[in-house]
Amino acid sequence: MASLRLSPSLDALVDALAQLPGFGPRSAQRAAFHLLQDPKRLERLERALAGVRENVRRCKKCRVFCESELCPICSDETRDKSLLCVVESVADELALDASLAWPGLYFVLSGRLNPIDGIGPEEIGLTALVDRIEADVAAGILREVVVATSYTPEGDATAYYLIAAVKKRYPHLRITRLARGLPSGLEIEYTDLSTIAGAVYARRDA
Amino acid sequence: MASLRLSPSLDALVDALAQLPGFGPRSAQRAAFHLLQDPKRLERLERALAGVRENVRRCKKCRVFCESELCPICSDETRDKSLLCVVESVADELALDASLAWPGLYFVLSGRLNPIDGIGPEEIGLTALVDRIEADVAAGILREVVVATSYTPEGDATAYYLIAAVKKRYPHLRITRLARGLPSGLEIEYTDLSTIAGAVYARRDA
Ligand SMILES: [Zn+2]
Ligand SMILES: [Zn+2]
Repeated sequence: MASLRLSPSLDALVDALAQLPGFGPRSAQRAAFHLLQDPKRLERLERALAGVRENVRRCKKCRVFCESELCPICSDETRDKSLLCVVESVADELALDASLAWPGLYFVLSGRLNPIDGIGPEEIGLTALVDRIEADVAAGILREVVVATSYTPEGDATAYYLIAAVKKRYPHLRITRLARGLPSGLEIEYTDLSTIAGAVYARRDA
Repeated sequence: MASLRLSPSLDALVDALAQLPGFGPRSAQRAAFHLLQDPKRLERLERALAGVRENVRRCKKCRVFCESELCPICSDETRDKSLLCVVESVADELALDASLAWPGLYFVLSGRLNPIDGIGPEEIGLTALVDRIEADVAAGILREVVVATSYTPEGDATAYYLIAAVKKRYPHLRITRLARGLPSGLEIEYTDLSTIAGAVYARRDA
């Protein structure tokens, strides 16, 4: 990457921006120059980062990002508290909730199990989730846990671990995964083979 | 874009990131979540922005970003001070200098002339450039000005303005533009028609 070592501060900003997903060294440099073009832009981003650092925390119950002890979803009295959906990330929760298909609550894991990289149940919050399920079962409010992890090897491993842990402790609690199948609006020709295979195995009566 | 209005601070950060070139609302959200995943990332970017705000300024002579009155290029005694290259942006200067083809100095404009949007010679620094050329000519150190603006309508307009201004004042000063032609490593089939036409008109004896 072209760099004249014009300014160590500028280099540090380019390096920090280059760590963001979607940015490489080149686009990070372009973004840094864009910010430098106008001091107001720079200050706006700096203030926004400070605001997030000071105000944003994790919801005590579902671990989504929020600004109070409980997030707007967990404190929403119209939500069906007997349904718990387990997702891999805050982004997944936002996408699911935007689909308007889920009337229940959530629990956000920190990604997926990955034993090779030393990422176990404790690291992704599965232990905290099992504690929550235990408390909800004890309080008699839980009917179903939907494991909404992705259909990837790591997402599958995470789902299997959780399903096994729940079935062992609470054999009568309903535990499901999201349906696997063809995405809407995509021709079969352009769908990957593993998705097509999954849709064939999970075919249903019309 | 999926948003649960979980946190006004988080929304403000996503909005600020979405202003960066290369980012849209979706990638800005992904970047914000990535930063929130680890407080160290957030603080690193915040510190980097503060560092830039406090330390980076424009070189007094060429207007590139730097941390002292004169940038490393302008204070480099081995540079040929009789050659001045005028570029549209700091990024263009970095790219030109990385090519190792330019032994002289630079002057960075703030973009290109665009009368329709009210961007005139004053706004992009052409007036300051003409002042600098005047001083360099008076001091007897300037031999050639290369106008390295892009071959776009606005880049052409900027070049024509500058060339006319210089020729009127200093008819004996050499003023050039970068060669127009085929880029290296690209087949003609994939080159845009205006570039091909430019290369034909500027063809030279082999
Ligand atoms: Zn919550
Ligand atoms: Zn300079």
